[in-house]
Amino acid sequence: MKILLIIADGLGDRPFGPLDGKTPLEAASKPNLNALAREGMIGLIDPILPGIIPGSDTSHLNYLGYDPFKYYTGRGPFEAMGTGLKLKGGDVAFRANFATVDEKGVVTDRRAGRIREGTSDLARPLNMRIEDVEVLFREGTEHRAALVLRGEGITTDVSDNDPHAEGLKPREIVATNENGKKTARILNEFYRLSLEILKAQPLNSKRRAEGMKEANAILYRGGGLVPTLPNFNERYSLKAGYVAAVALVSGICRLVGLKDFSPRGVTGSTDTDVKAKFAAAVEALKEVDFVLVNVKGTDIAGHDGNGIGKKEFIERIDRALGETVMKIRDDIVICFTGDHSTPASAKEHTSDPVPILLRYHGCRRDGVGEFDEINAKDGYLRLKGSDLMNVLLSSANRAEKYGA
Amino acid sequence: MKILLIIADGLGDRPFGPLDGKTPLEAASKPNLNALAREGMIGLIDPILPGIIPGSDTSHLNYLGYDPFKYYTGRGPFEAMGTGLKLKGGDVAFRANFATVDEKGVVTDRRAGRIREGTSDLARPLNMRIEDVEVLFREGTEHRAALVLRGEGITTDVSDNDPHAEGLKPREIVATNENGKKTARILNEFYRLSLEILKAQPLNSKRRAEGMKEANAILYRGGGLVPTLPNFNERYSLKAGYVAAVALVSGICRLVGLKDFSPRGVTGSTDTDVKAKFAAAVEALKEVDFVLVNVKGTDIAGHDGNGIGKKEFIERIDRALGETVMKIRDDIVICFTGDHSTPASAKEHTSDPVPILLRYHGCRRDGVGEFDEINAKDGYLRLKGSDLMNVLLSSANRAEKYGA
Repeated sequence: MKILLIIADGLGDRPFGPLDGKTPLEAASKPNLNALAREGMIGLIDPILPGIIPGSDTSHLNYLGYDPFKYYTGRGPFEAMGTGLKLKGGDVAFRANFATVDEKGVVTDRRAGRIREGTSDLARPLNMRIEDVEVLFREGTEHRAALVLRGEGITTDVSDNDPHAEGLKPREIVATNENGKKTARILNEFYRLSLEILKAQPLNSKRRAEGMKEANAILYRGGGLVPTLPNFNERYSLKAGYVAAVALVSGICRLVGLKDFSPRGVTGSTDTDVKAKFAAAVEALKEVDFVLVNVKGTDIAGHDGNGIGKKEFIERIDRALGETVMKIRDDIVICFTGDHSTPASAKEHTSDPVPILLRYHGCRRDGVGEFDEINAKDGYLRLKGSDLMNVLLSSANRAEKYGA
Repeated sequence: MKILLIIADGLGDRPFGPLDGKTPLEAASKPNLNALAREGMIGLIDPILPGIIPGSDTSHLNYLGYDPFKYYTGRGPFEAMGTGLKLKGGDVAFRANFATVDEKGVVTDRRAGRIREGTSDLARPLNMRIEDVEVLFREGTEHRAALVLRGEGITTDVSDNDPHAEGLKPREIVATNENGKKTARILNEFYRLSLEILKAQPLNSKRRAEGMKEANAILYRGGGLVPTLPNFNERYSLKAGYVAAVALVSGICRLVGLKDFSPRGVTGSTDTDVKAKFAAAVEALKEVDFVLVNVKGTDIAGHDGNGIGKKEFIERIDRALGETVMKIRDDIVICFTGDHSTPASAKEHTSDPVPILLRYHGCRRDGVGEFDEINAKDGYLRLKGSDLMNVLLSSANRAEKYGA
């Protein structure tokens, strides 16, 4: 059988006052999810381990079978993926900031007045080639950005230029050992060039004229190697694809070799979008054997503290399932879960285990017909994130017996 | 938030005949524990792993985040802590026996007639300095004792002197390699001196006169290095304390750097004592961020086969909670569990998982309002001991997200 893994980002929640102490999933009207629960089994999954607060990156890696304790190389590479930069194994990625320096080169604001607008115009001309090294630069949220070096001999054996305080000059980048010499040279040259380029940008002339802090320097830190991940398709002997709008998730999917089936312009925040994503996944399953779909609205509502909005987004998901996935449910393995909890009461990720639903033709039925965090404890499944691929593959008759 | 971890030693139990087949926890009147259960979640914890029978030492280590498979260096060091000796990382500790030798030095009783009385008088003069090495000696229960060497160049690379049979002379201690030479020399000298010292003790003259076996020699075996444990406060970025009467538990707490808040003279066997412990913990939480409280009565009753006494002790705990901890329950993370099961029907530790209760403001509620071994299976939690610190820290908003 083919496999559809639907990840509602940040799905798990806690009792929410305005929902009479129910969780958004408990409170939501969700006839299709409940039907799948009745026809299959539900339970709880710890995306990493009990008590470990997952990021979307570490949990997606773990779900796909890539142990984050082995493959997660820090925020630099994964935040860079989150900006939408298309990274490759072996790239070295840094977390970067737009900052303000005065005429003597002293940092006067590490965040360039928390600049919000126009950073994409500033970032574009910072993409360049220095020697034989490709320099990729992309803006993130507010003053944040990502700097990536791609080329022969690039390593993480270098210091940061970020002085981590105002009133100081950015530090000269130095190699921490022999292997870092080329990288340090490239980074120092990049810093020199970036000062010239940024100074000449119209946006900075405008900010200067309006008395705002210029975004005229780049501070970078926390270089990390983009991991080279074993190809998912080869590893599990199948063809796999994904549907996701959020850059961090699509970055990971791309890195492990999943094919992009995401419809254009979709963000996942409206009914139409959710339905378009599920429809794209159903269509993709005609071509490939495994599709991961990430819908983001649940996480966004959780971060916003909007438990009612989260409930409503779950209802959208349920309606969209009814119009798409439900129609092929007897032909595939369906798994519906979240990558972590983002309780509306906490407004951030927590380590609470996440409800999970598994349904395929002929599977065990645990008799629990309400899919939510609380009923999940009475369901059949009690998994760790690292179990998921094995469970999905064996449910789909795609696993080999271990032994005779 | 701050964290209160209450460990009722040996809490878990099995059906007990005189309690109509209920466990002591099931049979106990426990309105406060049940209130905490209703307001939070309960479940089961395997202190080490399913089927592994925990000691109080291995399970407390594991709960505090110190993998016993890495840090537990054998019974020598931990039994020595159990005698009340204040050990330091790097000490070498041996299990010791008072024994009887005849005038030719042949062991006639490895346990000195299972001597019960007066061993502290015999032990005291055996504390001494040999060369530059401090020798600590402390009596345990009956014929048992602990011998500890502290000083430069002391190692575990030595043989035992215990011949493990009567009718033989104690063995000459030999170094098993170059590193053990000094330790072997000190131990042989200690044996020689101990014979002289013990022979001269009034208690032995009395035993000789009464035809009882003299405790005139020391056999030792099983040397183990007291582990140097990473400091708890630094590791988890908090200030931590403990309240415990039993030496083994306080020894471990001290070794990892927890501050002692135990009230004087408390043993935990009466109402007043339990309340004094909880009150001390509540007071300690004004100063520190994490407090471990160990109450011992449950374990003692279990070892005695006294299921009714265990039930009554649990009722004492519940009353004491009502007068102390319950009043601050909205301000802290409360976890109530045991370090292992000591069923009254078994009179010893078993590997049965232990009920656990977790409650903090805004947490998920699993709807299970009776806290006992059986209802725990319907609760939310299913943990291993090694998960506990992660779960407590993330419940208290003291954990970092792993990823983005």
